[in-house]
Amino acid sequence: MIQKPRGTQDLFLNEINEIIELETILKTIAKNYNFQEIRTPIFEAKELFVRSVGTTSDVVSKEMYEFVDKKNRQFVLRPEGTAPVVRALIENKLYAPEFIPFKTFYIGPMFRYERPQVGRNRQFNQFGVEVFGPNNIEQDLELINFAYAITKKIGIEKNIQIDLNFLVTGIRREKYISDLKKYLETFKNLCNDCTQRLSLNPLRVLDCKIDGIKFLDAPNMQKYLNSEDELYFSKIVQKLKESEINVKISSKLVRGLDYYTGLIFEVKYNSEILGSQDTIIAGGRYNNLVSELGGPNMPAAGFALGIERILIILKNLKKDLKTNKGLDLYTIALSEKGMELNYKVLRTLREQNVIVDTDLMNRSFKSAFKQAEKLDAKWIIIFGDEEFTTQKVTLKNQKNGEQIMVDVKDIFEIIQKNK
Amino acid sequence: MIQKPRGTQDLFLNEINEIIELETILKTIAKNYNFQEIRTPIFEAKELFVRSVGTTSDVVSKEMYEFVDKKNRQFVLRPEGTAPVVRALIENKLYAPEFIPFKTFYIGPMFRYERPQVGRNRQFNQFGVEVFGPNNIEQDLELINFAYAITKKIGIEKNIQIDLNFLVTGIRREKYISDLKKYLETFKNLCNDCTQRLSLNPLRVLDCKIDGIKFLDAPNMQKYLNSEDELYFSKIVQKLKESEINVKISSKLVRGLDYYTGLIFEVKYNSEILGSQDTIIAGGRYNNLVSELGGPNMPAAGFALGIERILIILKNLKKDLKTNKGLDLYTIALSEKGMELNYKVLRTLREQNVIVDTDLMNRSFKSAFKQAEKLDAKWIIIFGDEEFTTQKVTLKNQKNGEQIMVDVKDIFEIIQKNK
Repeated sequence: MIQKPRGTQDLFLNEINEIIELETILKTIAKNYNFQEIRTPIFEAKELFVRSVGTTSDVVSKEMYEFVDKKNRQFVLRPEGTAPVVRALIENKLYAPEFIPFKTFYIGPMFRYERPQVGRNRQFNQFGVEVFGPNNIEQDLELINFAYAITKKIGIEKNIQIDLNFLVTGIRREKYISDLKKYLETFKNLCNDCTQRLSLNPLRVLDCKIDGIKFLDAPNMQKYLNSEDELYFSKIVQKLKESEINVKISSKLVRGLDYYTGLIFEVKYNSEILGSQDTIIAGGRYNNLVSELGGPNMPAAGFALGIERILIILKNLKKDLKTNKGLDLYTIALSEKGMELNYKVLRTLREQNVIVDTDLMNRSFKSAFKQAEKLDAKWIIIFGDEEFTTQKVTLKNQKNGEQIMVDVKDIFEIIQKNK
Repeated sequence: MIQKPRGTQDLFLNEINEIIELETILKTIAKNYNFQEIRTPIFEAKELFVRSVGTTSDVVSKEMYEFVDKKNRQFVLRPEGTAPVVRALIENKLYAPEFIPFKTFYIGPMFRYERPQVGRNRQFNQFGVEVFGPNNIEQDLELINFAYAITKKIGIEKNIQIDLNFLVTGIRREKYISDLKKYLETFKNLCNDCTQRLSLNPLRVLDCKIDGIKFLDAPNMQKYLNSEDELYFSKIVQKLKESEINVKISSKLVRGLDYYTGLIFEVKYNSEILGSQDTIIAGGRYNNLVSELGGPNMPAAGFALGIERILIILKNLKKDLKTNKGLDLYTIALSEKGMELNYKVLRTLREQNVIVDTDLMNRSFKSAFKQAEKLDAKWIIIFGDEEFTTQKVTLKNQKNGEQIMVDVKDIFEIIQKNK
C-alpha cells in the first residue's frame, strides 16, 4: 500500500474543521489590522534561503528538501515564509512608494526535513505577517499587539508571556560578540552544535537547548546598546506593560534565523503541554534583509506562528473552535418518481445556498434517518410517488419534532425562515 | 536578483482578491452539496501517480517534478489531486461504512513541468471534488449539476457546453480498441505522440490536438456499449437535457488520465479567449482506482477545474468577483500624545472587529488623506494633543462629508451603527 510521506498529514473531517476555523480567525485579525494575503510559490531557488536565513542555521544546513529541475536549477521546498515574501517584494517592485507601507500575511505549508515528533511535521503550516516601510516603535507595537490579539481570540492570553530582546548592531555588535566568545570559550565540553557555532555564529550558542542553561553570567546584550536603541527598547517595554501584556526582557533571546536586527520577540505559552517547544509566535525587525537580497534599503518587521502547534494547545485545553452547523436539510427518495422530484428540489435549493444532502446509497429507512442525524440535519423530507403527484411534501423538523406540509415551491421559504 | 521559479506566480493585491473570491464561491457551493474539504501533502510517492494516472500519460511520463529525500525515497510534487485523495481514503480507512458516502473536495497547488503559456503555469491551482460510495445515475447527475452550478454562479453558464461520453468497459472495450487500432493504422504520417500512443494507449490518439480532427469515421464508442450501459448513459443525457443544460454526446472524448471508467464529461467554454484550451471543468467515474491502489472495491467519481483558467475567462469578460469593502476607519496621529491615544483606540477597535489602519510613515497631512482614500476608508479620525486631553474626537465620514464629535469610548458604536 502506498503511504503518505513520513512527517506529512492528511487533514479531513474534524481535524480540517479545526484548522479552517483557526485560519479564519487569523485572517479576520489580519483584516482588522489591514494586512492583505500574499501567495508565493511552494518551491524557490535554494540560493534565496542560503542568502537570507544563512548557512549556519539548522534550517538551511540540514533541513531543506532540495531538488534540481530538468535544466539543473537548484530548488528547495520553502522552509519558511519571510524570505519568499521579501523576494516577491523586490521582484514585483512592491517597495515603490505607492505600495508602502506594504502590510501582508501568508498562510500555507512549509517544509523541513526534521525528525517528526509531536508538533513538528516535515510539512507543516505557518501563518506569518510582514510590514515593509515603517521603522518605528509604533509599528513594532502594532505587530506585538497583533500577536497578542491572536492569543486573546483563541482564549489563551492568560497563559502567555512575551519575551523581548533588542539585538545590538554595528560596531557594538562586534564588541559584544568578541566578549561573548571569550566568555563561552571558558566552558569545556560544550555540545557538538555549540562547539561548531562558537566560531560560526556564537550568538546562537546562547539559545542552545542543551547548554543554554549554563551561561548564567554571559555578557548582557542590553549593556552594549547605544543610548538611542536603549531608549527605543525601553519605550516598547513600557508601552506593553501599560497595555497589561505580560512581557519579560530576555537578553539571551537571539532567534534561530540570521536575518534579524533590532527588536525581536517570542510569545511563549506557559504549560507542560508543549515541553520545550513553548514558543508559539516569534518575530522581529529585519531592516537589512531587503537590501541584502538585492532590493533597496527598506525597513521591515514581522512574525510567524505554527498552525499545528496552536492546534495542539487548543486540543489539550479541550477548546473547540468549530462552529460546524450541520445540514439545513436531508432528503430521502423512495421511488423513481420520488427521485425525480428530489433531483429538481435539490438543484434549486442548493442554488439558493441551502446546505442539503440526500441518500444515494439506497439505504434502509432506518439507516437513512441515522445518516440525517449524523449529518446534524435540521429538516428531513421524504419524496415518494404521492409527493410527486400532489407536489406537496412534509418537512419534519429534527430539532423539535414539528411537521409542516407545504407546496414543493415553498420549501425554500420555510427553511430560510427557520434558519 | 533572485527570481521566482519559471512558471510560478506571486499573488498579491488585486490578483489575490480575485482568487480568494473564486475560492469562496467554490467552497460555498461545495458546502451546499455537503462536500467537506480534504488536504493531502504537497508531495507524494512517485509510485502513486505511476500506478493511477499511468505511465503513458504526458503528466507522468514528462511533466513531474521529481526528487529523492535523504533516505533515497522517490517523491514528486503532486501533479493532480485525485490519486492523493484515493491514497488518503485507503490509508485512513475512510472507505469504512460510517464514512460512506465520503464526499470531499480539495483546493490547492498542483505542479507540472510544462512549457509555461497563458493559462498554463508550472505551479497552478486546482479545485476538485470526489465522491466514494454511490454508483448510480443520481450521483453522476449531482456531480454534473455541481459543475454546472459553478459556471452559473460565476455567470458564464450561457456560454458553456457539457460534452459527455461513456467509456466502454470489459471485453467490449478490448473489441473497441482492436477495431480502433485497425482504423487508426490506415493513417500515414500521424504525429509523434499519436504514433507512440497507437501501440500504448490508442484511446488517447482520438483526442490528439494535431491529428484528432482527421478521425471522422473512427468506430463509434457508443455502438460498443452493452444495453445496461447504454440505458444508463441515455438516461443521464435525457435528465440533463430536461434540466436545460446544454449537453452534447462526444464519442471521441476520452480524457487524458488512465483511471476513468463509465461516464466522463468535460465542461467547455465557447469562446476564442482560451484558444484550444476550452475545457474548464472535467471529470467522470473511476470505479476501479480505489482497488487498483490497494483498497477495497469502491465506486467513485469526481471532477476538477483549474482556478487560473477560470480567472482568465472572468478577466476577459471584465467580470469582477471582488467584494472588497475597504477600511472602516483610517487614523492620523499628530503628536506624541495623539499617538498614545491612537494606539489605545486602535487596539480596542481591532479587537472588536473594526477594520482600521493608521499612518506609521509620518506622512504629510495631504498624503495621509490620500492614503485613507486609497484604502477606501469610510471614516477618518485625527488624534492630537487636544483629543488626548478632552478624550473627544471628530469622526469625519469620507462618503458624505458628515462630521460627528464623540467621546473616545463611543467611537465603536458610531462606526458599528453606520456599517
